[in-house]
Amino acid sequence: MEYETIALDDVNSALVIIDQTKLPNETKLLHLTTQQEIWDAIYLLQVRGAPAIGCAAAIGIYLAAKVIESQDYDVFYAGFCRAKEFLNSSRPTAVNLSWALNRMDNIVKRSAKLLVPEIKQVLRREAEQIKLEDAEVCRRIGEYGLTLVTPGAGLLTHCNAGQLATARYGTATAPMYLGHERGYGFRIFADETRPLLQGARLTAYELHEAGLDVTLICDNMAATVMKNGWIQAVFVGCDRVAANGDTANKIGTSMVAIAAKRYNIPFYVCAPTSTIDLATPTGKNIEIEERAGSEVTAMWYKKPMAPEGVKTFNPAFDVTESDLITAIITENGIAYPPFNDSLPSMLAGSDK
Amino acid sequence: MEYETIALDDVNSALVIIDQTKLPNETKLLHLTTQQEIWDAIYLLQVRGAPAIGCAAAIGIYLAAKVIESQDYDVFYAGFCRAKEFLNSSRPTAVNLSWALNRMDNIVKRSAKLLVPEIKQVLRREAEQIKLEDAEVCRRIGEYGLTLVTPGAGLLTHCNAGQLATARYGTATAPMYLGHERGYGFRIFADETRPLLQGARLTAYELHEAGLDVTLICDNMAATVMKNGWIQAVFVGCDRVAANGDTANKIGTSMVAIAAKRYNIPFYVCAPTSTIDLATPTGKNIEIEERAGSEVTAMWYKKPMAPEGVKTFNPAFDVTESDLITAIITENGIAYPPFNDSLPSMLAGSDK
Repeated sequence: MEYETIALDDVNSALVIIDQTKLPNETKLLHLTTQQEIWDAIYLLQVRGAPAIGCAAAIGIYLAAKVIESQDYDVFYAGFCRAKEFLNSSRPTAVNLSWALNRMDNIVKRSAKLLVPEIKQVLRREAEQIKLEDAEVCRRIGEYGLTLVTPGAGLLTHCNAGQLATARYGTATAPMYLGHERGYGFRIFADETRPLLQGARLTAYELHEAGLDVTLICDNMAATVMKNGWIQAVFVGCDRVAANGDTANKIGTSMVAIAAKRYNIPFYVCAPTSTIDLATPTGKNIEIEERAGSEVTAMWYKKPMAPEGVKTFNPAFDVTESDLITAIITENGIAYPPFNDSLPSMLAGSDK
Repeated sequence: MEYETIALDDVNSALVIIDQTKLPNETKLLHLTTQQEIWDAIYLLQVRGAPAIGCAAAIGIYLAAKVIESQDYDVFYAGFCRAKEFLNSSRPTAVNLSWALNRMDNIVKRSAKLLVPEIKQVLRREAEQIKLEDAEVCRRIGEYGLTLVTPGAGLLTHCNAGQLATARYGTATAPMYLGHERGYGFRIFADETRPLLQGARLTAYELHEAGLDVTLICDNMAATVMKNGWIQAVFVGCDRVAANGDTANKIGTSMVAIAAKRYNIPFYVCAPTSTIDLATPTGKNIEIEERAGSEVTAMWYKKPMAPEGVKTFNPAFDVTESDLITAIITENGIAYPPFNDSLPSMLAGSDK
């Protein structure tokens, strides 16, 4: 792609993102400077995808800290905490948001002896480091994922856990991009992912741009392409993985997993360790964001596509139960069931 | 609803239908007089749903026969057969189309001794009879279906097997309408049914109009509402049932069935015996119509919702394998597995 998904323009004190709500018809960069602008961009899905939200929040909290004028640590830290709490309220489900903000918080606390301007520099470097690490994490997930498939395989993905959801490579798309570089000739099937069509607008867009063989289908066609023998593996991203392996990801993911199980197709969750939350015992403990019904009834249509006044239910995520998951691919290796045993060892190599 | 789904205006030699592609925003009646207009209306889904297609084809072949000028039976019958073959080519998957046309053909052959104007009157009455029988068939399916659920139940349906897909009551919706008349207080969940959104545009519309409690969801949310415990039974229609019970219905039906099985929710196919095709051994023998990729990429959006040039796959139907089906509800009773044994007895009471 021509632009980075997320970038810091420190000279202008701006978080620069591609407005993903405008894709694939328009590539528009947004320069966000205030806390409210950054909160809105996360809430409105102009930047989305758990790892990308983490990167955006880290840069966002740095920019919020940068404009605090006091040189007194306690006053500075109180302002930092207010901004952190505010940004943390923009989306409830992705753990990366609070993960990135807590990591930034920890570095402030560890830097309490420094002068406030020095702390701001520490924060900037930490935000940049989170982004660099994210790209490296994705590359490693791609390498592990690539060991699970063979050249020519048909791969299905849901929503966008792609480059647009991360600093680079994506998570679910990382094996696809690395395989493409190595001539693996994958045939990719992308679920369009209603209601917001991240699969059609983002995944199909970025894979097609990069020259991969991608076929777009409606969500309800996934079982058919599986039954037709066209799919050898499913790769999806995730927003939060519980200690038992239950995985919150974009609504519809669990139906893909249920269908994959019926057709004996391996179902892989690509999970940076930052999305693994051992403090959440099972999927039942994950809060699921509900969004406006207008996303279902009207948002993507020339006219309302449902009768006026009809009730809707619009959960943004679902939980894929761990028995449906073949393996969870992290930057530190591949976790197999039982996940209560395998996930902690994945985290041993990270900073959790 | 204000208008009938399908009506014969014999004075003006017209098939009168509600243009279902304009719902829910506009209720537009179409007056179709030529074979080509009727073929187009079926092909373009202005009239759709297997039973409604059968009724439309019966009226359509009557109107085509009506304008044959020759008084010679052989010339008349040759013209009838050309019209029959043409109308039969409008959609490949629904068996009702050829079922209704064959029934009209049989009555012509049985009337060979009559004068051509008399044969035309016989055809008119047969077309009206097919429509009356369809309403009665649906009512009886509703009565049988109602024995399988209890008041207050949550019911999920996919696509539109409603009043708009039949002469009256619908098939999958017949238990819902009858239950509503009797104060059962069902909570209905309607899958929107991509790509053409028959669930959002038609099912949510007709149930909402009739005062039922209906909630619209995206297809990929069905597993979530099931897991939440909100669904006690699934009712769907069908386009063709094979001898072993494998059922072709709108794309996505099989994913609903797979999810229902996981959550131990009964999955019922509502099938007029006219859709049961014992000559088709299994679902593998059912031809699945593929439609234009633009239905996936552009049709329902203000702008294209996928990148230009991306590949698509757009099957209009899928086959739900019989092991996923709890029972098949016909106007002659409820067929349980093994369907190879139970389906023939359902047909014994009909004219097959």
